[in-house]
Amino acid sequence: MEKKTKLVADWQTLMRTFINHEDDASRSTLVKYMEQIFFGLHDFLKKHVGITEEVSLKDLSKNFTNTLISENPEKKLADVITDLVENIAPHAVNVTSPYFVGHMTSAIPFFMVHLKTIVAALNQNVVKIETSKVVSILEKQVIAKIHRLIYEEDESFYERHVQNIRTTLGCFIEDGTLANLTAFWIARNSMLAPKNGFTGVEQEGIQAAYKAYQTERCVILVSRLGHYCVKKAGGLLGMGNQNIMIIDVDADNRMDMDSLKKAIKDIKNSSIKTKIIAIVGIAGATETGTIDPLSEIGAICAENRIHFHIDAAWGGPTLMSEKYRHLLKGIKLADSVTIDGHKQFYMPMGCGMVFFKDPSIMDSVSYHANYVNRPGSVDLGIKSLAGSREASSIILDSALKIMGSKGYALLIEHGIDICSEFAGEIEKRPDFQLITRPELNILTYRICPFHIQSMLAQSNPEQICSINKKLNKINTAVQRLQREAGKSFVSRTKLKISNRHGKDIVVFRCVIMNPMTNMKILNEILDEQEEIFRGIEEL
Amino acid sequence: MEKKTKLVADWQTLMRTFINHEDDASRSTLVKYMEQIFFGLHDFLKKHVGITEEVSLKDLSKNFTNTLISENPEKKLADVITDLVENIAPHAVNVTSPYFVGHMTSAIPFFMVHLKTIVAALNQNVVKIETSKVVSILEKQVIAKIHRLIYEEDESFYERHVQNIRTTLGCFIEDGTLANLTAFWIARNSMLAPKNGFTGVEQEGIQAAYKAYQTERCVILVSRLGHYCVKKAGGLLGMGNQNIMIIDVDADNRMDMDSLKKAIKDIKNSSIKTKIIAIVGIAGATETGTIDPLSEIGAICAENRIHFHIDAAWGGPTLMSEKYRHLLKGIKLADSVTIDGHKQFYMPMGCGMVFFKDPSIMDSVSYHANYVNRPGSVDLGIKSLAGSREASSIILDSALKIMGSKGYALLIEHGIDICSEFAGEIEKRPDFQLITRPELNILTYRICPFHIQSMLAQSNPEQICSINKKLNKINTAVQRLQREAGKSFVSRTKLKISNRHGKDIVVFRCVIMNPMTNMKILNEILDEQEEIFRGIEEL
Repeated sequence: MEKKTKLVADWQTLMRTFINHEDDASRSTLVKYMEQIFFGLHDFLKKHVGITEEVSLKDLSKNFTNTLISENPEKKLADVITDLVENIAPHAVNVTSPYFVGHMTSAIPFFMVHLKTIVAALNQNVVKIETSKVVSILEKQVIAKIHRLIYEEDESFYERHVQNIRTTLGCFIEDGTLANLTAFWIARNSMLAPKNGFTGVEQEGIQAAYKAYQTERCVILVSRLGHYCVKKAGGLLGMGNQNIMIIDVDADNRMDMDSLKKAIKDIKNSSIKTKIIAIVGIAGATETGTIDPLSEIGAICAENRIHFHIDAAWGGPTLMSEKYRHLLKGIKLADSVTIDGHKQFYMPMGCGMVFFKDPSIMDSVSYHANYVNRPGSVDLGIKSLAGSREASSIILDSALKIMGSKGYALLIEHGIDICSEFAGEIEKRPDFQLITRPELNILTYRICPFHIQSMLAQSNPEQICSINKKLNKINTAVQRLQREAGKSFVSRTKLKISNRHGKDIVVFRCVIMNPMTNMKILNEILDEQEEIFRGIEEL
Repeated sequence: MEKKTKLVADWQTLMRTFINHEDDASRSTLVKYMEQIFFGLHDFLKKHVGITEEVSLKDLSKNFTNTLISENPEKKLADVITDLVENIAPHAVNVTSPYFVGHMTSAIPFFMVHLKTIVAALNQNVVKIETSKVVSILEKQVIAKIHRLIYEEDESFYERHVQNIRTTLGCFIEDGTLANLTAFWIARNSMLAPKNGFTGVEQEGIQAAYKAYQTERCVILVSRLGHYCVKKAGGLLGMGNQNIMIIDVDADNRMDMDSLKKAIKDIKNSSIKTKIIAIVGIAGATETGTIDPLSEIGAICAENRIHFHIDAAWGGPTLMSEKYRHLLKGIKLADSVTIDGHKQFYMPMGCGMVFFKDPSIMDSVSYHANYVNRPGSVDLGIKSLAGSREASSIILDSALKIMGSKGYALLIEHGIDICSEFAGEIEKRPDFQLITRPELNILTYRICPFHIQSMLAQSNPEQICSINKKLNKINTAVQRLQREAGKSFVSRTKLKISNRHGKDIVVFRCVIMNPMTNMKILNEILDEQEEIFRGIEEL
């Protein structure tokens, strides 16, 4: 019998939540909750096809101001679920909508949710073998699988390393920011390694390392389209984020090789003694989806013995497509590669990964404790930025088995193909201007009616600047109004266009990864933008 | 009709995995899988009450060596689930067993799995408001709730800050290691802040910062029982991990105040110009569960204007117990506090948190990008070590509502009370020696028969060393044999015992957080250890 009285925390009720449900009655309760979650959310989404409810953040936040933890239980699980389905979900963002094409978050296959449930139910902690056992072994295997996808070393290499307790081909971590940080941390330690009485930067610090290596500055080189986490890593690692040197991009938004070569030359000739910790190649820039000339950067890094890191957080899984993997040619030259599982592996949030060409390079960051991670153990936490971690490897490994690389290839090819078609449609419409042509499944464009495009072509820098200023206002307003209308979502960013006098222009940014997103939907999105634009013009 | 033929990746099959299941047939399929997961795991656990199957890692790893990703699907979801239940789960570690008392991982309430499922199904990314909306607001609220639990500021303080887009009371991150790193990162930046033409350590780096502040070294002070991640943070942040200064502990394993004062004095008088970035107080040491004298450390930090960080990854939730919150007296003096959600908040893996007394202190680590995290937005990713993050706040907020602080208190008090009773039992048994008395719910002990204890009391240092060496071998062997037998699991570590000539001794480490763990079970564990010990003796 369910009591309708005030809820009270008591031991018996509490214990029931820890018991394995063995009888039929409690089993059906467990299932009832899961049904409530799945069907509640589905029913909700059926009714609300939009991205989010029309309510301002400010109004929303008024309901989230109580900061006292209730002493006694406030709600039963069923009510908490109802609340989440009815009051939180509608005001969250429906990232599963095919009209949500603004960010690198999208619908995921339903089985990903099932797999995450298994991971939570097993609740293994992969920091050490004693709380994970076979899952640590599984993690080593799936890391080797992705390593092989990237580096294509021979069978004997993987036989030697897949279950080798002394070597590490890569690791999982919360996200791409931390994966990139891991790579730069290791690159820094490799550059400022122990020598002649100096025990290494990890032990003695930057100050001592600069002295031992007669260096005044360490830098990382990355294109203007590099993710902002590269600067964050520079700040964290004690190099200073001003020492992340920005290299210009060419007309196609790829790192400009002449600029890179000049930067390296300037560094060598600089009066400030400088070491280059790493050069970053981007494989799928966050804003434009463009891919740097990886082979050429790789060759330059090899020539100059510089750590080559590739941020393939977005583009990495393109390697599974026979049709498009050539776009990432040169990726195997990288010393380290970041790939996010929660991006184009379509996994739920919280799965970054980083891979290393040299299976011993992570030795410079090994840490031990007496109670876990003893030297010589299989404990994965010995060489890892994070400590406790959930077993994301179970999700990735299972997904690879369910999908096959061809299944993933279908998703990735769909995104690239539709994005290319969408670019054509934008070029056909007189109100729009394509700004960055898609190399993968990301493009940018803006509202810039044909007669203004002609005007821009004939204007002087000052006039261009003034026209762009107005266009920026219009595009910002249209993006905001479309977002607030709640039916569809395209993000916006600011880009410098080459040869357009270096000024930032506001653009719509479109990321196509949802397989349900098709040309009909994208046309509707353009129609809506045109309509909003005409509404503004009339004002 | 299910086909028995070879699986092939095709678009139609793929699409079905992305569709919201609206008809009854596909709904029942969804539920069928969930039942398979829940009941499969439960049935398995019913049959296998132990911690893990008896098979060596080496043998296990032989089955995890294939490193090729299959082109076509290898398995259907149902088969993948069966495989996980039948072949992975038995060789993982049953952390839900009440006989698993070796690590800070345990059974969690079943509803935590449901909540994790909701988080995965919503798949929000809390890095930015555009992929999370209300969930970012919810996160700010629950962060404020825990902040209030720690700091107990007045209502007006929380009214001002709970939904303030310019201030930050704390943040979520993957785990305690990264939460502590966040705290030290911010402490470093506060110490080496911008001044007179110097733009701060984050921007200019350690080298320039040391020059600007006429410093040769930065140190962090932590007791001998500090988590190994403090050293890791020192390495990462460019200070050098050798500059994590270890302070001795007293007979009760708490930071020794005289040693701390002496260390500060020595640093002030040192010929090497040194700045103290932070002093760490531990609230629940990983190995012994002991709590440093927080009030005294807080007073010393205030007097010397040093950042006071408390690592309460383990002990933090003790604040919810009226009976035991006094053990953490002084916690509100901290400038920053780490608490892990996946420890004593009984959440699934992957939830660290860090809180700050000063709501503006995180300003020194704000990073922006053009497409997200614009200045002035509610985007939580502006001030955060990580980028993309799952919405752990939903789980914690819901759990607080379902449990109430009293519900949590019951769990925490059970652990502390049983642990204290267990200490009494260990002292009663002639074969055992209690090594560290529990302050919270962690204790250490070893096999050391009564006659040997007497012998030790009368021996000289050399004899003690030789006896301890033998005891270490015995205790290591017993722990290993018990673990391999697979029925129960107690971890082991090495501790220096005060006044025992500074040598490491091997001890059993017992962590009691599973509410199903009772004295009957703990006695069985001791019985088994005695039996194994006698078996060894006979050899």
